[in-house]
Amino acid sequence: MIPINISDKFKLFNEHWTPKKIGELNGQQLLLAKLKGEFIWHTHDNEDELFLIIKGCLKIEFRDKTIELNEGEIFIIPKGVEHKPIAENEVHVLLFEPLAIKHTGNVISNLTVETFQTI
Amino acid sequence: MIPINISDKFKLFNEHWTPKKIGELNGQQLLLAKLKGEFIWHTHDNEDELFLIIKGCLKIEFRDKTIELNEGEIFIIPKGVEHKPIAENEVHVLLFEPLAIKHTGNVISNLTVETFQTI
Repeated sequence: MIPINISDKFKLFNEHWTPKKIGELNGQQLLLAKLKGEFIWHTHDNEDELFLIIKGCLKIEFRDKTIELNEGEIFIIPKGVEHKPIAENEVHVLLFEPLAIKHTGNVISNLTVETFQTI
Repeated sequence: MIPINISDKFKLFNEHWTPKKIGELNGQQLLLAKLKGEFIWHTHDNEDELFLIIKGCLKIEFRDKTIELNEGEIFIIPKGVEHKPIAENEVHVLLFEPLAIKHTGNVISNLTVETFQTI
């Protein structure tokens, strides 16, 4: 029952592609992540995933198109849709997704995080 | 599968205390609302409720304390906790909550909205 200041939370870590948990509600979790460079192609078979851009410009590649998201924009990736985020410069995002989600979905890579640290 | 621009969506309505739906995922909904003045005391017995302040300063009264939320701050109200939002000046908020939630929880008032319009 205390306010969560997004800007303050982003000061607590610097790793890229390593989401940090800042809250839970209704079986869902709220994550913050810093992104830079290319992530991997992956799919979440059972979970929709929400990206809210806090800072920067994020590209998300799909097999049939690429979208570009800027600060203050939200994108919901439906379950089952393969995607690959790309951040040419550092991007800060807020993610909203089910507690059961796996970081890299159906793929395991050296970027995969098994458990999201709470900050 | 299109980006949702929060600022553009806020230009589409002016009513206060009347959340508009901008997205759905995993049985949850994403709402935007403009708030001004005092809302009513109410409780959501089965749903946690997330407020993210996009613009302005929102007070939320609880029976034992009052909190103040500013732009870029998030607050999660746990299910069962009675609360009353107050916006001395207009506040823009993003809400994240289950599809099944009732606007004014266990209370019906002239502010109650039965179905949230999608914008």
